[in-house]
Amino acid sequence: MDILYYVLFTAILALGVASVNYVLVSRQSSGTPKMKELSDIIHKGALTFLNKEYIVMIAFVIVAFCGLFFFINKQIAFAFVCGSFFSALSGQIGMRIATKANAKTAFAAQKSLNSGLRIAFSSGTVMGLAVVGLGLLGITVLYTFFHFAPAVIYGFGFGASSIALFARVGGGIFTKAADVGADLVGKVEKGIPEDDPRNPAVIADNVGDNVGDIAGMGADLFESYVDAIIATMVIGFGMSALPGNKGVLLPLILAAVGIISSIIGNFFVRTKEGSNPNDALDIGVFVASAVMAIASFFIIRFYTNSYTLFFSTFAGLISGIIIGLSAEYYTSAHKKPAQQIARASQTGAGTTVIQGLANGMFSTIIPILAVCAAIYLSYRFGGGLYGIALAGVGMLSTLGITLATDTYAPVADNAAGISEMANLGEKVRARCESLDAVGNTTQAIGKGFAIGSAALTALALFVSYIQVAHLTALNLTDPLVIIGIFLGALLPFVFCAFALQAVGKAAYEIVNEVRRQFKEIPGLMSGKAKPDYTRCIEISTNAALKQMIAPALITVVTPLLVGKFLGVESLGGLLVGSTATGFLLAVFMANAGGAWDNAKKYIEEGNFGGKGSFAHKAAVVGDTVGDPFKDTAGPSLNILIKLISIVSLICLPLFM
Amino acid sequence: MDILYYVLFTAILALGVASVNYVLVSRQSSGTPKMKELSDIIHKGALTFLNKEYIVMIAFVIVAFCGLFFFINKQIAFAFVCGSFFSALSGQIGMRIATKANAKTAFAAQKSLNSGLRIAFSSGTVMGLAVVGLGLLGITVLYTFFHFAPAVIYGFGFGASSIALFARVGGGIFTKAADVGADLVGKVEKGIPEDDPRNPAVIADNVGDNVGDIAGMGADLFESYVDAIIATMVIGFGMSALPGNKGVLLPLILAAVGIISSIIGNFFVRTKEGSNPNDALDIGVFVASAVMAIASFFIIRFYTNSYTLFFSTFAGLISGIIIGLSAEYYTSAHKKPAQQIARASQTGAGTTVIQGLANGMFSTIIPILAVCAAIYLSYRFGGGLYGIALAGVGMLSTLGITLATDTYAPVADNAAGISEMANLGEKVRARCESLDAVGNTTQAIGKGFAIGSAALTALALFVSYIQVAHLTALNLTDPLVIIGIFLGALLPFVFCAFALQAVGKAAYEIVNEVRRQFKEIPGLMSGKAKPDYTRCIEISTNAALKQMIAPALITVVTPLLVGKFLGVESLGGLLVGSTATGFLLAVFMANAGGAWDNAKKYIEEGNFGGKGSFAHKAAVVGDTVGDPFKDTAGPSLNILIKLISIVSLICLPLFM
Repeated sequence: MDILYYVLFTAILALGVASVNYVLVSRQSSGTPKMKELSDIIHKGALTFLNKEYIVMIAFVIVAFCGLFFFINKQIAFAFVCGSFFSALSGQIGMRIATKANAKTAFAAQKSLNSGLRIAFSSGTVMGLAVVGLGLLGITVLYTFFHFAPAVIYGFGFGASSIALFARVGGGIFTKAADVGADLVGKVEKGIPEDDPRNPAVIADNVGDNVGDIAGMGADLFESYVDAIIATMVIGFGMSALPGNKGVLLPLILAAVGIISSIIGNFFVRTKEGSNPNDALDIGVFVASAVMAIASFFIIRFYTNSYTLFFSTFAGLISGIIIGLSAEYYTSAHKKPAQQIARASQTGAGTTVIQGLANGMFSTIIPILAVCAAIYLSYRFGGGLYGIALAGVGMLSTLGITLATDTYAPVADNAAGISEMANLGEKVRARCESLDAVGNTTQAIGKGFAIGSAALTALALFVSYIQVAHLTALNLTDPLVIIGIFLGALLPFVFCAFALQAVGKAAYEIVNEVRRQFKEIPGLMSGKAKPDYTRCIEISTNAALKQMIAPALITVVTPLLVGKFLGVESLGGLLVGSTATGFLLAVFMANAGGAWDNAKKYIEEGNFGGKGSFAHKAAVVGDTVGDPFKDTAGPSLNILIKLISIVSLICLPLFM
Repeated sequence: MDILYYVLFTAILALGVASVNYVLVSRQSSGTPKMKELSDIIHKGALTFLNKEYIVMIAFVIVAFCGLFFFINKQIAFAFVCGSFFSALSGQIGMRIATKANAKTAFAAQKSLNSGLRIAFSSGTVMGLAVVGLGLLGITVLYTFFHFAPAVIYGFGFGASSIALFARVGGGIFTKAADVGADLVGKVEKGIPEDDPRNPAVIADNVGDNVGDIAGMGADLFESYVDAIIATMVIGFGMSALPGNKGVLLPLILAAVGIISSIIGNFFVRTKEGSNPNDALDIGVFVASAVMAIASFFIIRFYTNSYTLFFSTFAGLISGIIIGLSAEYYTSAHKKPAQQIARASQTGAGTTVIQGLANGMFSTIIPILAVCAAIYLSYRFGGGLYGIALAGVGMLSTLGITLATDTYAPVADNAAGISEMANLGEKVRARCESLDAVGNTTQAIGKGFAIGSAALTALALFVSYIQVAHLTALNLTDPLVIIGIFLGALLPFVFCAFALQAVGKAAYEIVNEVRRQFKEIPGLMSGKAKPDYTRCIEISTNAALKQMIAPALITVVTPLLVGKFLGVESLGGLLVGSTATGFLLAVFMANAGGAWDNAKKYIEEGNFGGKGSFAHKAAVVGDTVGDPFKDTAGPSLNILIKLISIVSLICLPLFM
């Protein structure tokens, strides 16, 4: 059991490095009072959102805890609370540092491009390492605590899923409702520019960006990370190919190696004046992946006396990178797909939307083929079903650094905004904008990676489901399985429909509040009085929480009903159906949304008539459609497919 | 074998009634020379399209025949040619009468509403009965000819599928390319009204409507009809529950009963001045369904000594009706969903598109549940897997009358257009418009029905696939099956992407031709010279045929590759995955498209500011997006899911 100490040590090391980075970033200056003020408003707004959301979340956790405690299993109930707490904690840490690091990044950029990059990236590293550290710590401690029976740790994963549901679905609705609400009254009715501090919803909008890209992305990947590890442990439990508990410990070991690789990669993220900071991040991720690949090769050889499982880990690692790069290609303003959409904008909004939808659908090809290849290779040349689950662990092993590059993006984005609003001069602004441009790329890659990892994690959970349910066969010649697949394929469509509609409904409440403030607060329009930012954040939060009830309920209730009335086999079909369609829709929506956004930016760079042209107006329509696609419905599907699987796994005893 | 004579007699009876109707409609007067001229242009245009398409189709049929003949089975090759010929023949008959009946309907409407209804509906009946008559005739003769071995008749189904591919995919691209091309130059560049005879693409546009709703719909349902019957026969072959060849003959008997029921229903379609002609069509379909239900109850009881299989037939019949009504609800201008979209138009094109997409996704719930219920009931209470296939036959049994109400729609639509262009006066115009309004409802129902029947047919083919491949298990614990499902779920997305993009590319070629004619033909704009309509039809046809190569190729090649390299089990997964996702996407696209169209019409009725308002402009964008959704990509998916199944079935010997 010595190995567990090493694993535990690595988890604590990750948290240690995260803490050091936290302190180092916190100690940096936030610059001028104006910069500090701007940063503070966003920081406090973010905490308002989080605190408001936590009240509902705590209520939810208590109810679910009671359900698990009395109807399922006391240990699972306990693990569930741990999972919720750890996920919420990592989100809290990430949000706190990121919403402070923006002004500090802008200030550091006055010194040099590298200083700015280091601050922004270090704040991202806090989140990245907090997620993997807390995840691995929680799993290892629970595994030891529960006398080495991995299945109960699924409670930990369920806790992570619940927080992810709130952060991704609730957060996704929040961010777009605030965005749309702010624009509809501010830009359209009052004619004031975007991000104007007179607009009462402007802080809610800024907070929303951080909520989506930090709390949302973090909780999503925390969930994938722990679920993939737990599923692999459960499948490896008592596996004949690996004697003793080697099959259970291997994913923990690989996760630990991944953490070390991420920390090593971390040190390679440096840039010089005049170079593209993107290269710095690429080198960091590349070094981490290479270290992980080489180290896992020798460790697996040494630990299992065979190379086979290395293929699984490696296939997962590579397919994650391919899916990320494919997302970048299909959304980048400097690649063909987005420019095709920009070109289609010349003939109007209709053709813009059609071209975007077509491109989004085409963009599903590479990710699906990459995942299928990973399944095939890890099954055929790797370790069977265990190998498939291990591919998920491989893909997520370097999460410590890939999540850092993700969380970097909103920090750099806000830094660029602050450098402009606080008039830091042309040179600093250029540096901050160069940092921000990189953020767009890492975000696109991160979104693709999040979807791909969700799909592989859901598959690992499905494999575990088969095993835990003792299904020797899950036969497609059984019509109940077919019905399960049909219903499973239906769920993502219904879920998306709710998510798309929720944004409109929540935005409507913001619109009313913003209108009220403009009417009732004297001197607001002339800039003499300050708007009530907090009220808008609260209303957005409440509206988002209300609108997420329906989609959340479907996700939890459907597997229960199918399991109860159609049986365990049909539920297995449901999992496969929802994973396949959910994965496809998620890629489609994320990439279509990203491409519309960048097609608009491409036109704004001066192409096809530039800003204000006919093409630009059409591109704005595409962007409006794309907003809930890429920031609400799309990412929410990641949660859907994992949550359904984990609910099914945990509630299995009720159906058998 | 006496029963086969009765079946054969019924098929010939259907063709006889169709012929009588053909002659009766043809003998009616086409009215004034102006009316005749308008009708003639469309009629000749339609034949130009068909003849052009037939040349490519014949080449395709010859190539496929050789492939089947040398690599698969000579009997299948022969059946394939028969299927292609019969499908093409029924399309030819339907198009010929429908494009003549429009002026005759307008002329008859001068006498009374009922006379108009009878002409339009009778011309629809020609198509409806030609499809079921030729379908049943072909199957029965081939079954007898090939010594009662049903599996080779799949060649007949493959022939039907091939023609459907051209009619639906090629036709779908043609109709929207002509539509968009005509609008872009005519309305936008030249500022002339829609349907202006000076526009060189206007006839191509009119022909397109008939192509989509008659040739396309007819070939699609011909394919479903014969595939469902053949699959049930194959599954029933040597089934132990039904002794002898009773399991093989039952679908033929039920199809024959359905034809008689349709002919009886036919006589109940009459209306009075001042009543809604919709009621007349509803009564006709209702009578046919009731007769079918009652007759099948007794026949199944008598023939099988049990009631069980009646549940299957009945479940199929009812679920078809439910899916149709659901499509009507989600698209009608007078129901909530379309009005929600109209309301969303007030805040711009972006919200119009989002609301339409959300509604389209919601609209998948009822059809999926209806199909799942039909599967469940027909399996559990009906006759197992045979029961599921029989549900498809039940759903399609009254096709003779349901297809008639479909084909009625473009006839009534063109009649309304002719009554306006030929100045037949207010009263006649009102009558024709009341007939046209009904057509919109029957079309919505017909589209839903076509999708639902495609899904059930694909399922029947899948069940047959399992049996023919001798698969005792198709296990979801086998990763190759999972990969098959993922790849299957991917196909409809890729297919849709191609279809959406094809419309834009084909429209571009029309735009160039229309511009050329306006430039090179002197006096065209002033109305002194006539445009070259035929050239536009030829160019649309060529462009459509070129653009359908990629999606068609994917549909045929993917099952071959998966079967060859991943095996028969993986191919089974592919069929299930593509059926589930294809069905969902087809419903989503058809209903979203229909709802956008009617939201626009609802605004044009004077709501939310009426024609020319801000809301109307936004609604026009929605309609533009919806056009290729509902008329190209959506209906093409019906073909995709059936064609993949039949290709897999026929090529099975290559993989085993």
